[in-house]
Amino acid sequence: MSQFLTDHTRALPSTVPFTGPETLERQQGFPFRARLGANESIFGPSPKAIAAMTEAVAEVWQYGEPENYDLKQALAAFHNCTPAHIVVGPGVDGLLNLICRLTLEPGVNVVTSLGAYPTFNFHVAGHGGTLHRVPYKGVHEDIDGLLSAARSHKARLIYLANPDNPMGSHHPASAIEELVANLPEGALLVLDEAYADLAPADAIPQIAPDHPQVIRFRTFSKGYGLAGARVGYAITNPELALAFDKVRDHFGMGRISQIGALAALADQEYLSEIKAQVAAGRARLGQIAADNGLTALTSATNFVTIDLHRDGDFARKVLRESQTRGLFIRMPGVAPLDRCIRISIGPEAAMDVVAEVLPEALKAAG
Amino acid sequence: MSQFLTDHTRALPSTVPFTGPETLERQQGFPFRARLGANESIFGPSPKAIAAMTEAVAEVWQYGEPENYDLKQALAAFHNCTPAHIVVGPGVDGLLNLICRLTLEPGVNVVTSLGAYPTFNFHVAGHGGTLHRVPYKGVHEDIDGLLSAARSHKARLIYLANPDNPMGSHHPASAIEELVANLPEGALLVLDEAYADLAPADAIPQIAPDHPQVIRFRTFSKGYGLAGARVGYAITNPELALAFDKVRDHFGMGRISQIGALAALADQEYLSEIKAQVAAGRARLGQIAADNGLTALTSATNFVTIDLHRDGDFARKVLRESQTRGLFIRMPGVAPLDRCIRISIGPEAAMDVVAEVLPEALKAAG
Repeated sequence: MSQFLTDHTRALPSTVPFTGPETLERQQGFPFRARLGANESIFGPSPKAIAAMTEAVAEVWQYGEPENYDLKQALAAFHNCTPAHIVVGPGVDGLLNLICRLTLEPGVNVVTSLGAYPTFNFHVAGHGGTLHRVPYKGVHEDIDGLLSAARSHKARLIYLANPDNPMGSHHPASAIEELVANLPEGALLVLDEAYADLAPADAIPQIAPDHPQVIRFRTFSKGYGLAGARVGYAITNPELALAFDKVRDHFGMGRISQIGALAALADQEYLSEIKAQVAAGRARLGQIAADNGLTALTSATNFVTIDLHRDGDFARKVLRESQTRGLFIRMPGVAPLDRCIRISIGPEAAMDVVAEVLPEALKAAG
Repeated sequence: MSQFLTDHTRALPSTVPFTGPETLERQQGFPFRARLGANESIFGPSPKAIAAMTEAVAEVWQYGEPENYDLKQALAAFHNCTPAHIVVGPGVDGLLNLICRLTLEPGVNVVTSLGAYPTFNFHVAGHGGTLHRVPYKGVHEDIDGLLSAARSHKARLIYLANPDNPMGSHHPASAIEELVANLPEGALLVLDEAYADLAPADAIPQIAPDHPQVIRFRTFSKGYGLAGARVGYAITNPELALAFDKVRDHFGMGRISQIGALAALADQEYLSEIKAQVAAGRARLGQIAADNGLTALTSATNFVTIDLHRDGDFARKVLRESQTRGLFIRMPGVAPLDRCIRISIGPEAAMDVVAEVLPEALKAAG
């Protein structure tokens, strides 16, 4: 490895959190019939967002507005806080990178769930933090276990996704509010709410935007259907929000993306329609699972996790057999969650591909 | 400042490298007549890039391709190297962040020019490196001075922009090649070639892509007119290029941006037209400067730096007086370069605004 790297970066692994579907397509030599592995919104964004972005293409010679002024104003109004409570960044991934950069260094402990979002782990390792993983309790992240681990390790960050990825489960608002009330001194709750826009209302906790120990992350990649635009945001106290200015790439937001996010946020009616379609898709995938003698877990997200009731080797085979038949899906990375596969919800035609391919893949996997 | 920050990030300044033109417009309460401060390409990108991006809006629900496969293939063919020599990232700014992250830590020295790109300095400080600044030699970055400082400080990074920003000057290829031949052991040349696509051919050095001590940075923000799309790239040896995978945001590139950059790169004919228009703009700004008794410096970029032959206070006044008259321009930040103002080249109508406003601003500044 290059002589110029620091000892820390030299020692970092070169493994990447996820392999992209295009890489798989190149390997197998044909395109997927249904792209249902990355929890993208196959329904697409609001037509109003598409129109705004189409119009914005002509002004792409201009840098994005570095303060994200308009978007922060709109998000503050939407979330009933001030623009000073909002941080805009290039997706939740980019913002998780920044919160890790701001808070972590060698010797600092972080608590997450065993099998939770790998990209967060990537950033923790990237900034020298030490990860402690708490097993899931059934299909849920174990809040008591996370709290207990945070106390014993004196963790600075506690990561929790609600709704959860990869299981699609959620804790009720009251459980998250209790977690917030019981945070150990010195611990910051990194609450990843990427799927909040698709979740039942009772999954969304009330947390004062000024709370000194919570930062919530939201995205335009899921419910709003703008994954390829890279727009995420955080809600936190103004002091912590301001700290992002010390490290963020000030002209890093794409201009078309800023404009698209603003238009998408304004079209809540469209988001409601998507929610209805996602609900229908959950039911459809539940039926497909049942038809194959499998169990679809209750989902608060735009994907459904299906328990195959076998082991990880079997699930990996089903994944491979699905992919060779043109169906791109993913699965949790570690045991015991890896007895499951995870399928994004899409329009009827995409669900039809699942209904067709899954039984074949199950059969081929033995 | 928040209790969760590391000692290092707590101590970082909150100053930002640049104030955006939209911030100035909000402050003054009216839009600029001519936006000529950020060296954007007011000519816009290739119509083919616009068409490709417009078409790509509909697929923005998909994440960008995480390996930047197509763009790396095309860039490798264009630069006569392999895709393994290419790193794609969110603009040169984002890539400078990453090279600093990979190589810097407290105690590591970096050499740059006094008055050179502030965003690089922002990233050096952000990652704990120690900056040493070498004064310009007239209107050029001082290559011998940089080499000498790098030797005496045992610098790990040497930053040089060629063509230079903010002066618009350039060193001939032979001078850069000589610098490369004389790099001290342990020093990596960070060669910022953001303006290379607009420079005379003799500004572009021949450097083996495998060279172990050079990383070159290019962008689609300047000549290609895609500043708001955030696409930059680096050319370096495969070992160092691969290291970026340890720290980059794998799904961080916008999908529309990837597609736009690919189309822009393919349209070299359009880039040639832009070069011709930029050359005409240089001549026009030279004439405007002469009409006002000022000296336009020779430019290898899409901006012209004009020596006002007074001090920084006067230049700052001229800047303010220009802005209040609807003309957004910038100037070098430190003495003695701050005797100058810097005006981006644009179409005839924008140059007309300069011709109209500059004499008024000079008069008002006294």
